[in-house]
Amino acid sequence: MQKGRLEAFSDGVLAIIITIMVLEIKVPHGTGFAVLLPLIPVFLSYVLSFIYIGIYWNNHHHMLHTVTRVSGGILWANLYLLFWLSLVPFVTGWMGENHFACETMALYGFIMLMCAVAYFILQRQIIKSQGKESVLGKAIGKDQKGNISACLYIAGIGLSWVSSWLSGSMYVLVALIWLIPDKRIERTVE
Amino acid sequence: MQKGRLEAFSDGVLAIIITIMVLEIKVPHGTGFAVLLPLIPVFLSYVLSFIYIGIYWNNHHHMLHTVTRVSGGILWANLYLLFWLSLVPFVTGWMGENHFACETMALYGFIMLMCAVAYFILQRQIIKSQGKESVLGKAIGKDQKGNISACLYIAGIGLSWVSSWLSGSMYVLVALIWLIPDKRIERTVE
Amino acid sequence: MQKGRLEAFSDGVLAIIITIMVLEIKVPHGTGFAVLLPLIPVFLSYVLSFIYIGIYWNNHHHMLHTVTRVSGGILWANLYLLFWLSLVPFVTGWMGENHFACETMALYGFIMLMCAVAYFILQRQIIKSQGKESVLGKAIGKDQKGNISACLYIAGIGLSWVSSWLSGSMYVLVALIWLIPDKRIERTVE
Amino acid sequence: MQKGRLEAFSDGVLAIIITIMVLEIKVPHGTGFAVLLPLIPVFLSYVLSFIYIGIYWNNHHHMLHTVTRVSGGILWANLYLLFWLSLVPFVTGWMGENHFACETMALYGFIMLMCAVAYFILQRQIIKSQGKESVLGKAIGKDQKGNISACLYIAGIGLSWVSSWLSGSMYVLVALIWLIPDKRIERTVE
Repeated sequence: MQKGRLEAFSDGVLAIIITIMVLEIKVPHGTGFAVLLPLIPVFLSYVLSFIYIGIYWNNHHHMLHTVTRVSGGILWANLYLLFWLSLVPFVTGWMGENHFACETMALYGFIMLMCAVAYFILQRQIIKSQGKESVLGKAIGKDQKGNISACLYIAGIGLSWVSSWLSGSMYVLVALIWLIPDKRIERTVE
Repeated sequence: MQKGRLEAFSDGVLAIIITIMVLEIKVPHGTGFAVLLPLIPVFLSYVLSFIYIGIYWNNHHHMLHTVTRVSGGILWANLYLLFWLSLVPFVTGWMGENHFACETMALYGFIMLMCAVAYFILQRQIIKSQGKESVLGKAIGKDQKGNISACLYIAGIGLSWVSSWLSGSMYVLVALIWLIPDKRIERTVE
Repeated sequence: MQKGRLEAFSDGVLAIIITIMVLEIKVPHGTGFAVLLPLIPVFLSYVLSFIYIGIYWNNHHHMLHTVTRVSGGILWANLYLLFWLSLVPFVTGWMGENHFACETMALYGFIMLMCAVAYFILQRQIIKSQGKESVLGKAIGKDQKGNISACLYIAGIGLSWVSSWLSGSMYVLVALIWLIPDKRIERTVE
Repeated sequence: MQKGRLEAFSDGVLAIIITIMVLEIKVPHGTGFAVLLPLIPVFLSYVLSFIYIGIYWNNHHHMLHTVTRVSGGILWANLYLLFWLSLVPFVTGWMGENHFACETMALYGFIMLMCAVAYFILQRQIIKSQGKESVLGKAIGKDQKGNISACLYIAGIGLSWVSSWLSGSMYVLVALIWLIPDKRIERTVE
């Protein structure tokens, strides 16, 4: 029951985050498709962030599936993750409106890195409260995906001063890695 | 349980989409009913989109009713549908503020077509994970309603350069077709 | 289960309506309590609408408690109610920003009357699908509260051209009448 | 069941409050980290309010855990709490945009005090409907934490005319006191 409410609250926050991002795509004045052109970078950054939030929701869903008892540590680690995710609409808007300028790309990567760290902390809290021999403990193992993502984020932040394209590629790559849902948990559950 | 969270998240996103559309009806400065007149097209486009989102929620509700196991494919197809639906407030606002100008009508139809395609994909994913002999598989059959809607959307997009009235009639017609909830599923369930 | 999703969606929409109304209280530029003075009418109209939405949520909660099977008619009557309620933030903002000018008061009353009519329709749909001898059918009876409210709304609309104070008193009176939750249902359930 | 809907509605409102606060951090025009500097006070006030709402959600969660029957008094006390919490985004934005000016600090403390009072009323309503010998009744006891918080809020309001730093310290101190979830309830439940 406790878990139900944790999930409901997280779902609510994630649903709102994903939807208020679309408010950054401001309705342009004037007709004609030409007025939509300046919105393309805003739209692209929206697509990327939508996928990221979708991935987080998906993996959050899989991870909490294994939880049986919610501890205080899990509650706060979850709120900490939601805090960093709540900043995603801001960095998405800043990046899109400034056509992927280097500083905006770097900040985007930094917030994403913080989200990943928060997700990692939540994972540890769950494993801690359930033991290393729990479903999640076994499924995660060395957490290679998580480590690779962190490296790619850091690379993306560094590369943002070299080329926005290179930096963006790093972030897209992370999304691609995670688009495949965490089979490790599914497999271990079975 | 997994299904419960998919429904809760979708409900959240749909509830927010339906409600942020109303934010496009900006509170006018000044009193007197005359200041409300320019808002009439914005209001009409809100009514149309409200009905569309209501239809999607209603049918989503009916369709997921038949689902017993949520696969990864269903999760992502659902997110893909929510992505296109999340763009509805934007096109609704653009269409309303520009008094149903041709390009705005065309884009509205295009987004609606993409929503329909995404809904079709979600339907296929559910049938795929449950077999053609499942409740949904039998209930949908040839999916005539879906095909007619797609044709009407395409007609609406094309007609938007001829007459906004004709184009709008196509979209209203689609809404009318779907206002009747999907009896096929209800009948087969019984 | 069906009912659960209807409640969840309605709760979501009502929660968002109640919260986006607060966005109309725009953060003023400048410090000092004097900059808050112009916000007082906006705040007062927010308080009134908050109470109204709270009453609707409360009574919706009581009414659906008696529902066992959700029909298509109930689904659409519920969406129709949510449609009119979704316009409350708009009229609240218009009324507050224009310091309770007569036209804004009249429109506020009109939207509230439409909400009441929609609530009445939802009530009829529920009784229709369950029989006059159902819990709700017996509990509502002649629905005096509903009739009195409708009269007060109409009086408030008419009086708005005479005096904003008189008109506002009508609306406050309706809120007071309903603040007491619908004991009729509770009593009959017991 | 009744309780489930009360929780769902409260979760929805809290999730939206926490997320619309982030909308106050307006996306700046221009690139370069320098444009982010003016946002630091807005960000800091967001962090503080996020923690406060997180604490309220957490304790609300713990407190309702002990509730078995929802009375009319609990429903309205809960709405009263949500009303004051819904004003948090406004005062957070006002405080952040005006760099913690004294009047904004005082109003922030006042709203927080009102939230605390509303939480206290909700607590009394729950205990009243369940008896002093209930889990919550025993767990709360003298409610020292609540009393200390109220004193600190009042101190913070008074000190806001002396020094923003001192006033802010009071508010941070309250947050720290409550960051530890209400062990009293957990302990008594066990």
